[in-house]
Amino acid sequence: MNNIAYYNGTYAPLEELTIPALDRAVYFGDGVYEAAYFRNGRPFALDDHLKRFKNSLGFVKIAYPTESEEELEKILRGLCDKIGGEGIVYWQTSRATAPRNHAFPENAKSNLLAWAKHKPLGDFTAPIKLMTMDDIRYKMCNVKTLNLMPNIMASQAAKESGCDEAVFVRDGLVTEGSHSNIHIIKDKKIITHENGSLILPGTVRSHLLRVAEKLGIAYEERPFAPEEMYTADEVLVTSATTFFRHACELNGRAVGMRDNETYMQLVGEYMQWMERETE
Amino acid sequence: MNNIAYYNGTYAPLEELTIPALDRAVYFGDGVYEAAYFRNGRPFALDDHLKRFKNSLGFVKIAYPTESEEELEKILRGLCDKIGGEGIVYWQTSRATAPRNHAFPENAKSNLLAWAKHKPLGDFTAPIKLMTMDDIRYKMCNVKTLNLMPNIMASQAAKESGCDEAVFVRDGLVTEGSHSNIHIIKDKKIITHENGSLILPGTVRSHLLRVAEKLGIAYEERPFAPEEMYTADEVLVTSATTFFRHACELNGRAVGMRDNETYMQLVGEYMQWMERETE
Repeated sequence: MNNIAYYNGTYAPLEELTIPALDRAVYFGDGVYEAAYFRNGRPFALDDHLKRFKNSLGFVKIAYPTESEEELEKILRGLCDKIGGEGIVYWQTSRATAPRNHAFPENAKSNLLAWAKHKPLGDFTAPIKLMTMDDIRYKMCNVKTLNLMPNIMASQAAKESGCDEAVFVRDGLVTEGSHSNIHIIKDKKIITHENGSLILPGTVRSHLLRVAEKLGIAYEERPFAPEEMYTADEVLVTSATTFFRHACELNGRAVGMRDNETYMQLVGEYMQWMERETE
Repeated sequence: MNNIAYYNGTYAPLEELTIPALDRAVYFGDGVYEAAYFRNGRPFALDDHLKRFKNSLGFVKIAYPTESEEELEKILRGLCDKIGGEGIVYWQTSRATAPRNHAFPENAKSNLLAWAKHKPLGDFTAPIKLMTMDDIRYKMCNVKTLNLMPNIMASQAAKESGCDEAVFVRDGLVTEGSHSNIHIIKDKKIITHENGSLILPGTVRSHLLRVAEKLGIAYEERPFAPEEMYTADEVLVTSATTFFRHACELNGRAVGMRDNETYMQLVGEYMQWMERETE
């Protein structure tokens, strides 16, 4: 079994699962989501994802999709367990199934769509190529909603330019990637955009800082300009499904790859932690 | 029959219609839409909507959902005809049904979801209440995508404040409503935000200017501050499903309602045209 999906109590192969056309995710993108890595059928950092999920729901005033938080956790762990091995568990909650009206429906009952699929992590340390792009997104990037059109367009543009990820720039400063957080290492110090409405509070971003602290590596939370990326020793690209990647190119110019020691130290510590958690 | 819905060749009552969980509308909001009024089972200004629909598709590089434009038109007219009388026809096209990846799937085949439902227009000239709200939306508001979370949140906030519509303000200037365009009339002249990435090129917005020209009423396309709304003679709120409304209140203060003659002249001319088109 390569994948298994769930919707409001029903299980089916992901390709066969259907949902009502009147689920507000379908016509408004009115929902929030999470995606986490699992190994040995056990989700990694699930608590962090569930906490952020709850925050996202709160921001947009969507009801929790299950009777209890434990119930959601049980469903998600069950999906991972059914697939086993290594993969991604994804889940989203939309506000309701209701006739199309902008304002919230009365007595809204939220929906839970989830799936787990087999997907090996592979060697994520292979250097990647980046390109910058104007950050035209809405100013609630801290909420992980289903409104991802600008992210999709940026990802596709990056792909068409032979790049692996797009780096958003707003008012001259790097915010984050189209589906990742961006950081630099300069003189053994990590520099990363502070949390707020302009970036997603990445789970791996917070892990990066936790691991850095443990290793005695300094960090500073502030935005940086693309120019700083060119002179950085390493450019890091983090996400829950690809962990700690690093970049060798930005807009066709060589970047980073000058402090592999620090990079591999961070990666090594992170992987040890992840492996302990998913044994 | 109160409604009828369509998805890629299948017809069903809207409440019963289902779509694949892997339609990219579901998890990315990766699609564009239109909604038009119909009367006597005949859609009004369908050409304008179809033209904008095609523009939206082009902006986000989504393939046309039917073999020909005539085929889509036939499906939409068929839905309106099946319901008859007065109502709304809605349709949306998402990029593809495919496993979740940000970049576009190869050989994407786009999806068409559509429905027509009975909904009387009623007396839209009853004055409405407005409130301003910070415009945090992305900067591609000219494209009618399914990414509507900020619009939903604004609509709901307006409703909770006893208002009928939210008016977005960006950098001190009014852009548009959460699901309408906003205009003012001052000294017999219409002032309306120019088209561009900050507002939707409303079909009724363009009709308003066409009708004004016919009536010899001057207009100017430029943004205005909320302060100008307080001193305006009329504040107009237009949309394809509610036509020409006007406001009596903004943020709890009285506005407009001082040039009913011009307002009713515009409404009268518009309704005559609409009625001719849908006889």
